[in-house]
Amino acid sequence: MAILERSDNGAVAKLKMNTPERLNALSDEMLAALQAEFDALREDRSVRAVVLSGEGKAFCAGHDLKQMTAGRQAEDGGKAYFEDLFGRCTQMMLSIQSLPQPVIAQVHGIATAAGCQLVATCDLAVAAEGTRFGVNGVNIGLFCSTPMVALSRNIPRKRAFEMLTTGDFISAEKAAELGLINRVVPEMLLEHETTAFANQLASKLGSAVKIGKQAFYKQLELPVEQAYAYAGEVMAQNMLYRDTEEGISAFIEKRPPNWRQ
Amino acid sequence: MAILERSDNGAVAKLKMNTPERLNALSDEMLAALQAEFDALREDRSVRAVVLSGEGKAFCAGHDLKQMTAGRQAEDGGKAYFEDLFGRCTQMMLSIQSLPQPVIAQVHGIATAAGCQLVATCDLAVAAEGTRFGVNGVNIGLFCSTPMVALSRNIPRKRAFEMLTTGDFISAEKAAELGLINRVVPEMLLEHETTAFANQLASKLGSAVKIGKQAFYKQLELPVEQAYAYAGEVMAQNMLYRDTEEGISAFIEKRPPNWRQ
Amino acid sequence: MAILERSDNGAVAKLKMNTPERLNALSDEMLAALQAEFDALREDRSVRAVVLSGEGKAFCAGHDLKQMTAGRQAEDGGKAYFEDLFGRCTQMMLSIQSLPQPVIAQVHGIATAAGCQLVATCDLAVAAEGTRFGVNGVNIGLFCSTPMVALSRNIPRKRAFEMLTTGDFISAEKAAELGLINRVVPEMLLEHETTAFANQLASKLGSAVKIGKQAFYKQLELPVEQAYAYAGEVMAQNMLYRDTEEGISAFIEKRPPNWRQ
Repeated sequence: MAILERSDNGAVAKLKMNTPERLNALSDEMLAALQAEFDALREDRSVRAVVLSGEGKAFCAGHDLKQMTAGRQAEDGGKAYFEDLFGRCTQMMLSIQSLPQPVIAQVHGIATAAGCQLVATCDLAVAAEGTRFGVNGVNIGLFCSTPMVALSRNIPRKRAFEMLTTGDFISAEKAAELGLINRVVPEMLLEHETTAFANQLASKLGSAVKIGKQAFYKQLELPVEQAYAYAGEVMAQNMLYRDTEEGISAFIEKRPPNWRQ
Repeated sequence: MAILERSDNGAVAKLKMNTPERLNALSDEMLAALQAEFDALREDRSVRAVVLSGEGKAFCAGHDLKQMTAGRQAEDGGKAYFEDLFGRCTQMMLSIQSLPQPVIAQVHGIATAAGCQLVATCDLAVAAEGTRFGVNGVNIGLFCSTPMVALSRNIPRKRAFEMLTTGDFISAEKAAELGLINRVVPEMLLEHETTAFANQLASKLGSAVKIGKQAFYKQLELPVEQAYAYAGEVMAQNMLYRDTEEGISAFIEKRPPNWRQ
Repeated sequence: MAILERSDNGAVAKLKMNTPERLNALSDEMLAALQAEFDALREDRSVRAVVLSGEGKAFCAGHDLKQMTAGRQAEDGGKAYFEDLFGRCTQMMLSIQSLPQPVIAQVHGIATAAGCQLVATCDLAVAAEGTRFGVNGVNIGLFCSTPMVALSRNIPRKRAFEMLTTGDFISAEKAAELGLINRVVPEMLLEHETTAFANQLASKLGSAVKIGKQAFYKQLELPVEQAYAYAGEVMAQNMLYRDTEEGISAFIEKRPPNWRQ
């Protein structure tokens, strides 16, 4: 049984973390498996949307504390291992944002610490009612500094600061209100609704979504004038795509587009 | 009949886009007319607030797709035209933010693509119940990359990403909740409420609002220490305005200020 | 009677502004007293959380307009004094964010202009029902440019712009919805609830909260890749704290941590 299962249906790829006995912790092995799949998806033009979920009681409970503790046995007390670990984790997270396809987190149970970071990092997120979100490393003396990078770019700063320093959970409803996730659905509809969401995204022109997603994160970090200069170029390029020409013609002629993708 | 009508009342200038048969699309002509009015308003010290609205069924439906399609006839397939078009559109949008006077979007019907960008770009926005907002270029294969610059600076990122990749509309109530607009009012009160809002802004000291609005957008893009250094200078300057001295004296003496403006 | 009272209880330090007859205005004296306390707290390892409140009818009504007006008597009309005043005020505000301990604003009555900035600047805020928040300098011709720096980093930009240009108050409930404060509680429970909140923060590992708080504000101003590189280093360092090792071991062994702090 793979620790990360992939199943494709049409243009939607589903990744399911599958170490439920460890609450799908981001162990060295899980990080490597996620990285390998995202690397493969990057080149896979048949996929136009990705769903990430977890098997068992939780979406993901963050780093694997037992494995990290074992890392302390090294001569340097684990320093080199921890630096490498957080580097690999960051690389995997950044791979989600640089992936051409949109990634939806399908969340249930709990999403804590780096598991909450994973939700914050995905482009979109749907959660089951009853899901709880937290960045609770502070409770054991390990401030969730890397999860904070993603979290503080999703929700208002005082809310992020509160979650980080109290370690308290928030509900799915609160997470939606704050902007950490897009939608809350009954647990028995979670898979169905997330799949429908992914199919909707996959029905769009993949080349347009790709150029748009890339521009989304890039322009967010630019001053507004530079952001516009860049986005204007992106949009002019997008206009020249053959399928975009067809999409606009079809709209003007009030008929469905006939895309080659 | 002008494609952009201007009517002034006291210190409030109202601009109304007036090509209802094209849903007030941002054609070359409309962009030029908006640019000309904003250039004129910039120098007009008698105006202290601006309202932007649209005639007919919609506030604004974005770019003029027929005109853009005609642009494809050029030898380069429209490349130069599209680059120029998005450049002119950006310049007009940035003119709204650099205008000394606050600009309120008075929105009804639909505000889509660059029309939604126009709402996001105005300093403030009031919408009628029933108004729908969308950045739905993705539906025709043209990702709303330039609208995204303004949208993603108004609402939480996962919400912006969802609107951009699904092409779905959001309601006026949702737009207010997310921060895209300030207020929702019944359609029959839209003009009345927006005018009252504009009159309230126009009752303030124009020189203070001008220096403040300029500082607002500038400081948003600075690191916090630089932002404070800059804002501190702005505030010290503001203290030296004759009318500000009068405003503060009047407040201390519990009487209305006697401003020269 | 000190104009700023400090009382410590366990690891929580409480600062209370105590010039109720001036609505705890940020006079030269109050700014100096706050600066002195924050400078002392910075070195005080026995304190792990700070609460800031105000005596009397208001939390804080902003700058001391009478004192500022007296400053106009100088040969330069007050220019040097105002620049210095806003510089000192900024330094005090930045001291709150650079303090190792989290600071909670305990707010009641009104928080206006630089008083509202103080709320926005604190890491966390709890307000009594009925509290009103405003940046209403615009009403007297003095745009709240320095308060804007903190406010616009807490709430959505159109909401901030509206508060700054209308001078209107918002309620505690609205302030919580927008992200300016964390919680609203009945006035008779304000002190009790804020104290419980502070005690919760103080129960965490101080060294982890310190490194985390510092990283929080620093990473917010970095591009995401740099933010992650920095946060990864912080987290690797945090892993090497002796008390963090104990915290993680205790968690794995399902027992309470035995921290030295």
